[in-house]
Amino acid sequence: MTTSETNSLTLFEDAPLQLDGGAALSAITVAYEAYGSLAEDGGNAVLICHALTGDQYAAGPHPVTGKPGWWERIIGPGRLIDTDKYFVICSNVLGSCMGTTGPSSINPATDEPWGIDFPVITIRDMVRVQAALLDVLNIDKLLMVIGGSMGGMQVLEWLTTFPERIHSAAVLASAARHTAQNIAFHEVGRQAVMADPNWNQGRYYSSNTPPDKGLSVARMTAHITYLSEDALTQKFGRNLQEREEVTFGFDADFQVESYLRHQGSTFVDRFDANSYLYITRAMDYLDIPSRFGGRLADAFIGARAVRCCVISFTSDWLYPTVENKRIVHALNAAGVPVSFAEIETANGHDSFLLENPEMDMMLEGFLASAERTYAPKHGSTGSIGEQQ
Amino acid sequence: MTTSETNSLTLFEDAPLQLDGGAALSAITVAYEAYGSLAEDGGNAVLICHALTGDQYAAGPHPVTGKPGWWERIIGPGRLIDTDKYFVICSNVLGSCMGTTGPSSINPATDEPWGIDFPVITIRDMVRVQAALLDVLNIDKLLMVIGGSMGGMQVLEWLTTFPERIHSAAVLASAARHTAQNIAFHEVGRQAVMADPNWNQGRYYSSNTPPDKGLSVARMTAHITYLSEDALTQKFGRNLQEREEVTFGFDADFQVESYLRHQGSTFVDRFDANSYLYITRAMDYLDIPSRFGGRLADAFIGARAVRCCVISFTSDWLYPTVENKRIVHALNAAGVPVSFAEIETANGHDSFLLENPEMDMMLEGFLASAERTYAPKHGSTGSIGEQQ
Repeated sequence: MTTSETNSLTLFEDAPLQLDGGAALSAITVAYEAYGSLAEDGGNAVLICHALTGDQYAAGPHPVTGKPGWWERIIGPGRLIDTDKYFVICSNVLGSCMGTTGPSSINPATDEPWGIDFPVITIRDMVRVQAALLDVLNIDKLLMVIGGSMGGMQVLEWLTTFPERIHSAAVLASAARHTAQNIAFHEVGRQAVMADPNWNQGRYYSSNTPPDKGLSVARMTAHITYLSEDALTQKFGRNLQEREEVTFGFDADFQVESYLRHQGSTFVDRFDANSYLYITRAMDYLDIPSRFGGRLADAFIGARAVRCCVISFTSDWLYPTVENKRIVHALNAAGVPVSFAEIETANGHDSFLLENPEMDMMLEGFLASAERTYAPKHGSTGSIGEQQ
Repeated sequence: MTTSETNSLTLFEDAPLQLDGGAALSAITVAYEAYGSLAEDGGNAVLICHALTGDQYAAGPHPVTGKPGWWERIIGPGRLIDTDKYFVICSNVLGSCMGTTGPSSINPATDEPWGIDFPVITIRDMVRVQAALLDVLNIDKLLMVIGGSMGGMQVLEWLTTFPERIHSAAVLASAARHTAQNIAFHEVGRQAVMADPNWNQGRYYSSNTPPDKGLSVARMTAHITYLSEDALTQKFGRNLQEREEVTFGFDADFQVESYLRHQGSTFVDRFDANSYLYITRAMDYLDIPSRFGGRLADAFIGARAVRCCVISFTSDWLYPTVENKRIVHALNAAGVPVSFAEIETANGHDSFLLENPEMDMMLEGFLASAERTYAPKHGSTGSIGEQQ
């Protein structure tokens, strides 16, 4: 079958998940979407890792916004990641707010939403939950794991933590550690949320007055970093918003202002402010080299059998080519086969989400080659996909 | 005399200032600092134009923070802009909050602070007030007008509007129009201020509960744009703030977070939130080419007798070299003599405020040459400086 359904499983009921931060978390609910059917030999499973404010709705309409899946352009029947051929899974990350356990979930100890009592998590914690999900889905090994931005960070943690469970890995527009500037922008966003009195130390769920204004400002700031100066100039320049002259006031005279305000105000309808704090924090804490004495290559020693692909975009100033190249050099140094491309585009960081024939061609070749070279050792029951 | 005193004058008492936005403003108070003495021939006057959150305290201690003047490094006895030789004036811009009329001033029509009833102003309006100040100070013509960032924008408006009153002009790290990205960052800052319930539609003066949290977030965001990725990495990297390990919480674990929070919290002690709205708006509205049919060169036709100097900095991504070069090309096309340098530095936009031998050498040569070529036509009384 090629349709998708929202699925949800509860994991770590018997033994809690030991988090990097020291806390343990039990009974973690994971919401995921699955498309296509798992092959009998289990060799066609592809895991999609989503970005900061993404979710499991990679290839089907979003239940809140009604918009198409965020990667529907490349995932679907007959598309680049062909759901007629592959069993495609995308799960909402730990700490998020679209069904997977996060700060808006109920804390069993208090029967109230966790709020900021929720333990701080890491990208690796997210990946551990994904691995546990695959266990239940009876998937020993992935044909491919792929993600952009924070999704790419998860792919990198798959390479460091479960390399034996992946045949190939694609990292787009990402980084193995957050820089000072990355942290700085996230901190501004968090401070914007926390400055909103409605945030109320994270306890806003019962009053139903979430810190929309603060979260909106956070989103507006972040959104600038997802684009590029060139993209903003090409898209908006100094064009005015439905007027002939500036108004000499504080209305959204300029299209770029109107656009940003819209980005902010629509975001708050689909995202939880505390989840925003937790996930940005997880990204800030990402520093894979530091776990290996500063040598990123050592993080990938166990991944020599994994075929890798790294793609960066010229106008991405959030996770620029230099950060992506660090990953490539480390993979090379570790003896991991890796192909790399820097793609010329003005679309900035968001390029991985947008139409880009060069990216598609590279991914298509990479996936075809991964498939050709993959001989699954352990057959899977093949029943999971059909059971849906 | 070489000491400075805070001075304040009220201008436009007889005839109001006609603002670009259409409104008229009467009885504008201008707060300024003056250093040195005006020469008998009036030929040694230098006007310093300050940036967005700057003020008139260019070369003497700030009365609120107690810190040295923001350009004390280059202005003072025996310094690059030598107050033993030059009569140096720096006035607080229209719309600001350090003594010059702005939204926190009393609206004579209501006897209450203006708040957002204050008319929206432009960079050129600021310059018109400066020109009126020079009239009262009996300065017909400036040996030099100089400024960085928004200060440079004022210098450009001097060139378009009062070219006959300047012998030389130096523009540092600036632009002749705000780009979409410039507007975007300012809009985020304004939205952060306005999202703070204490902003209260600009009416917070009587309650003495200003929108400190919102203004602090605005400043944090802006501050990132004043630095560069390299500067942030060199200065902070992922260094932790007085701790050995991350805390898995939302404290300022990282030095860069602590630094930004400090920047935000100290800023609100010295700056008015409404002034921040008005001055960012004035900058967003700057689009000199649009007043000349899109041809920036035409803006400078009247400035052929003015010697110009433009300096940009390699790591300045707020007003990058490309924007400064547009100015240079337009000056060249208009037949205005101009020297230009792009200075290699990692310090980002703030470079014009920081130690930089290459910048100093260029400015020193430019000022010496300006002095050599200057023959003031109209002697001044020379009494103003001495009267102080």
